[in-house]
Formats: sequence, C-alpha cells, structure tokens
Amino acid sequence: MSDSLVLMTQDARGVVRITLNDPQRFNALSSEMLTDLQAALDAVAKNGQARVVVLAAEGKAFCAGHNLKDMAAHSKLAYYQQLFAQCSRMMLSIQKLPVPVIARVQGIATAAGCQLVAQCDLAVASSEARFATSGIQYGLFCSTPSVPLVRNMPIKQSMEMLLTGDFIDAQTAMHYGLLNRVANPDELEAAVEALVAAIVTKPRIAIQMGKELVYRQREMGLEPAYQLAGQTMAINMMDTDAQEGAQAFAQKRKPQWR
Amino acid sequence: MSDSLVLMTQDARGVVRITLNDPQRFNALSSEMLTDLQAALDAVAKNGQARVVVLAAEGKAFCAGHNLKDMAAHSKLAYYQQLFAQCSRMMLSIQKLPVPVIARVQGIATAAGCQLVAQCDLAVASSEARFATSGIQYGLFCSTPSVPLVRNMPIKQSMEMLLTGDFIDAQTAMHYGLLNRVANPDELEAAVEALVAAIVTKPRIAIQMGKELVYRQREMGLEPAYQLAGQTMAINMMDTDAQEGAQAFAQKRKPQWR
Amino acid sequence: MSDSLVLMTQDARGVVRITLNDPQRFNALSSEMLTDLQAALDAVAKNGQARVVVLAAEGKAFCAGHNLKDMAAHSKLAYYQQLFAQCSRMMLSIQKLPVPVIARVQGIATAAGCQLVAQCDLAVASSEARFATSGIQYGLFCSTPSVPLVRNMPIKQSMEMLLTGDFIDAQTAMHYGLLNRVANPDELEAAVEALVAAIVTKPRIAIQMGKELVYRQREMGLEPAYQLAGQTMAINMMDTDAQEGAQAFAQKRKPQWR
Repeated sequence: MSDSLVLMTQDARGVVRITLNDPQRFNALSSEMLTDLQAALDAVAKNGQARVVVLAAEGKAFCAGHNLKDMAAHSKLAYYQQLFAQCSRMMLSIQKLPVPVIARVQGIATAAGCQLVAQCDLAVASSEARFATSGIQYGLFCSTPSVPLVRNMPIKQSMEMLLTGDFIDAQTAMHYGLLNRVANPDELEAAVEALVAAIVTKPRIAIQMGKELVYRQREMGLEPAYQLAGQTMAINMMDTDAQEGAQAFAQKRKPQWR
Repeated sequence: MSDSLVLMTQDARGVVRITLNDPQRFNALSSEMLTDLQAALDAVAKNGQARVVVLAAEGKAFCAGHNLKDMAAHSKLAYYQQLFAQCSRMMLSIQKLPVPVIARVQGIATAAGCQLVAQCDLAVASSEARFATSGIQYGLFCSTPSVPLVRNMPIKQSMEMLLTGDFIDAQTAMHYGLLNRVANPDELEAAVEALVAAIVTKPRIAIQMGKELVYRQREMGLEPAYQLAGQTMAINMMDTDAQEGAQAFAQKRKPQWR
Repeated sequence: MSDSLVLMTQDARGVVRITLNDPQRFNALSSEMLTDLQAALDAVAKNGQARVVVLAAEGKAFCAGHNLKDMAAHSKLAYYQQLFAQCSRMMLSIQKLPVPVIARVQGIATAAGCQLVAQCDLAVASSEARFATSGIQYGLFCSTPSVPLVRNMPIKQSMEMLLTGDFIDAQTAMHYGLLNRVANPDELEAAVEALVAAIVTKPRIAIQMGKELVYRQREMGLEPAYQLAGQTMAINMMDTDAQEGAQAFAQKRKPQWR
C-alpha cells in the first residue's frame, strides 16, 4: 500500500495500527481515502494474527469528514448516494471486524470524522482534541454521523451537536459517552497502549464472539437477547481457551492460551 | 387566539415562542390547554417562516402535568383514554414538527410537565427548576411520561424517578441527560437565545430533513439506519443551500443562504 | 427453605429481603444457588403482600458470578446451555416481578454478579463495592452480562468493561448509570431503606402496571409506546387507589390507600 492514503503496521502481538495519512487535507474521507481505509479494514478481517486495531491519524486533525471541496465539484444525486454508501460500508466494517477497534484521536474530529470516533468500539483522545458534527454549518445535516452518535450519547446532547454544529471539548465528549479516556497530548500513546495491553492478551475467539454478540443483542428485545447471549456463551465455553481458563481458575494458576 | 391558554409570538428571524399561560393552575395540561397547545403546534407545522420554537411558560411553574382535580371529577375509562390520547398526540406533534423545539423551563416540571421537557428536542432550565414524575404520589404511575424519559435518561435513574415520585434539581437533570443547559434565573433567557441563535441561521430544509431522520433511524437496526441516513444526506446535498454551502467552503467564504 | 443458599425475610410493610447466603463461595451463581434464588423470586411473584424486594448478600462479595470451578468440571455443550438458560430465566424473573427489586451491593460484583446488579430495577452500593465483567480474564466473554449492561450504561463504557475485564469502583459505576446511590459502608443500610421507604407506601397496583409498562414500551417505537402507555395509564386511573389519590389531591388531603 505504498501509494495509499492509509498506513498499516502490525507488531508481534497482533496490534494493527491503521493511520490516516493525508494531513494536508485534514485526513478528509475522500473517495480515495475511503477506498484505502476499506482495503485496510478488509485486510484485518482476513488476518488471523490481528488482535486489536488502533485507528490513528497523522497531522493536526484526526479527520475532518467528507471532502466538501470534492463534493462542491459534483452535483449529481448518484455521486452523493455512492459516496455515502461507500462511507457507510466502511463504518459498518469497523463494527463487523472480528477484533476491537480503538480510535486514537490526537486532533479535531468533525462530521464523518466524529462519526468515525463514534463508530469505533473504544476511543481515547488527547485533551486538545475537539468534536463537532459540523455539516449543518454548510447546509448539510450530519445524518450519517447521527447514526453512531445517538448510539453513543444521550439524545438531547446529540441533537444539540447536530443542530448547532458547535464543537465540544474532549472532557465533555467523554462525559457524554463518546470517549473512554482523555489524556494529555504527551500521554495519549500511553493511554491507548494501556487499553491495547488489557485486550491483546485475551483469547481472540472469545473477543470475536463477544463483540459480535454485544451489537446484535443490543438491537433485540430482552428475551431474545438473553437467548442469543446464552447460546453464544455456551459455545464460547466449549472453546479450548475457555476450558483452559476455567481449569486455570480451579487450579489457581494463570491460564496458558493457545 | 385571544382566549387561548397559550400565547404565540414570532420574531423577524422565524423564532416562534409558544407560552403556556395558565399560571394560576400551574399551566396544567387540561383538555383546554392541550387543545390550545395542539393548535399552536399545528400552526407552526404549516408556517413556512418558522425556524425554531421556544416552548416557555408563565408563572412559578413550567407545567404541573395533567389536572388531577379535573380527573377526580370524572371516573370513566373512555374519558381517561381520550385525555391521554390527546396528550400523546400533542407530544408526538413536537417530534414531528419540521423545526426544533427548545423547552425553556423556568420552574417546576412535574408528571406530564416533565414529559413535555423530555419530549422537546432541546431543553434549557433555570437553576431553580425542579423535575419529578410525581403521579405515583397520587396512585397514578407516570406511564406516558416514562416514554420520553427513558429515551432521554439512563434506565435506573428513570426508574427511581418513576417509582419514588421524588424531585431532582436542574443540575441532576442535566447530568442525567434531560437538559442541555442550566442557567441562573436571570440568565435563562440569554442561555435559550444562545441556542436559538446557533440554530436559526441554519438552512431550514437541512434542519427539517435531519431532525426527522435522527428520530427515525434511532428506532432502526444499524444497517437500515445507515441506509436511510445515507439516502437522506444525498438528497439533502442536492438542495440549493447545501450546494451553496459546499461552494462557499471551497471558496473559503461565508455561505449565502436563500 | 432451611437448607437454601438463599435467605428470605419479610417485614410488616411487605419489604422482602432475599439474601444470597453462600459467602465462602462468594455467593457464586451455582446451579443450586440459581434454583434457590428462582424459588425465592417465584414465591415473591405469588405473594400478594410483597411490596419491594431488597436483594442483598452475606460476606465480603456480593456475587462472583458463575462458579468457574463447577464449570471446569464439565465440558458438555448441553450442560452450559442449561446453566445459562437457567441463569437467564432467573434474570428475566427479576424484570417480570410485579414489585421493584433493589440490589444492595456491599462488596464486589463480577460477571453474572455484575449482571445481577444491572438487571435489578434499582441498585445501591457501598463505596467499597467494585464491579467487573471479568469473564474475559478466563477466556469467557461476559455475553449474558452484556445484555442488561448495555441497557444500563453507554456502549463505549460497556465495551471497555467487557473487553478488558477490569474493575470499576462504585462512584464510576454510578456515573455510568449502573447504580442509583453510593453510600459509606456503615450508611449502606440507611441508603437502601430511604429508597424502600419512598416506594413501599405507594399503591401496589400502580407500581406493578408501571414497572411492566416501562420495560415493554422501551422496546417499542415511539408511537406504539405512547399508545400502550396511554392505555395503561387510563386503566391505572380506574383503580380505586388512583381515584382516591385524585380525590385527595382535589381536597388537599393525604390519600388513604386500601
């Protein structure tokens, strides 16, 4: 992916870092960026060694959302439909990924950039990061960003961001539920690593089954949710690693995963 | 609407102020009040100049909910069914309105009065306002108020309010997600105006499409939600104002809306 | 229930206290514990004098979840399916109970023990209590605990607990929505009693109809939710106690319940 707008590295633990690398354009989600990001996510989906994804960005902005300049150059409904479908497909890929995705937010995240943070499983931000669903400032209500936003945050706080387009700071975003952690800029990497370290040592199959289950059951009524969750947990328990975990617990020793 | 229990004014910007004006009865949602409030909302729905609604109240109370005195004078199921249906229709009208509705809460909001705050898109309260779903104090569980309450606030905090009927103060209500802002009594008007000013300058069609989309997609699974949101955003982008917004962004100038 | 792992007492007000009484095993939800707890809940469901349930525990732990030692001794899918089905049935019984259930959390609550807290209608904890969905530490993702967890707390905070298995303290748990109150250990009983006292004096039929309605309408779209809630409230209003409540309000006196 040498010409890619997205960098991808992987360490010995299976921590994949995907970095948005178009700082001059504030890592805008152009069609090219979406294509490269989709390719990176698809590669992770097929990568049996991957355990956690850190979604990071180069430059001052995390992600400024869609490229309004590009959009101004088009005026065809079909173009916009294709662009939003491409973006939504990428967002859904994050949720469908078998490993957790942690957003590492070092700067502003606006519109579909804010959506990207909301769509990740976890998010850690620098205390200097700021967040807005700013499309309405340009006459374009952030409809697709509203999808994960209202699934992260209370409705009145979501509506305020969507209707005003105003920024909130990182502390407020964490208070609302959009972030897991806020760290000083020079401690951001350590804060991300702390979450990574807590997850990367856990059995991959349990994480995969669990992540999928959480989002599926959340859309169900309570009774079918319990039914699916109980079935999932029973199957998880049949896995070698869970059997080893239970044995290790019974024998008061540390589990030895595969 | 000279004999109405509801006052309605509109300024040059399209800010409609609807004021509950029955302070002696704490702006109780009597059948007459509901009729007048419904008429006001229906008028806004047909008013192409309206941009934002501020829902305010005269007197010491914002709204004390249904008029228990009236209800004591009746004992027919059909009467109660009609009353709650009338009230629910009014509440749904707020959500269906093409413009945002901001509750301006200057005093206590109890039972269906608390529901009214929860049902608005945004809410700003005086630090002296207090909130309760108090029906249970009189043997009548606040079932209809629970509908928007649990869609604003965490379930355990909702249940506590519903089961105890106890008051919470404005700061607590904001912390739970029921309010966007709390202001000192003499700064309440300014706090409402700040939200109004941030919204009233935005293109009407984008706000209308966006508000409808947010509530619709919230009731859907993630995939259909994204599908509807992407389609909505593409159509929004075809609007003259959004085209102008994107051009203005590309040309680094302020957009000139219709 | 003399050999039971669960103690049950009832006071003159109808306050039923169910106490998990297997402190040596940290009140683990073994098959025997689940059977005894189910029997206690079933007894409350049939008990017309019961008004509130306090779910408490003996010893240092509130509940450590499933007994991993037992689970290590089995390796049959059918066994695990039966165990999780039994546990889910018990959890659903709490929500279906006609009276509110308040968790009284004096110590750690992990995995299905944390789920138990989340599934109760209300929860009060000692400032020394801690909470974790720790199954992932042993290779078993807390799938069934995730069901009430994501219905109590924001999704990113839920995911962090589920993916890391790390503990949160009581203040954090309250901030996330998992608890209603945190009290010093020597004030825990008084904090529970304050909630009990606020609920036990309210008419039983209104509480029963209301509790059921809240959870049912929460799974519906807004319009059918309002329809069901309005119908429920009209029927509630026909009850003798609600009629008395409305009369008492009109006559400015205290209501005299049945």
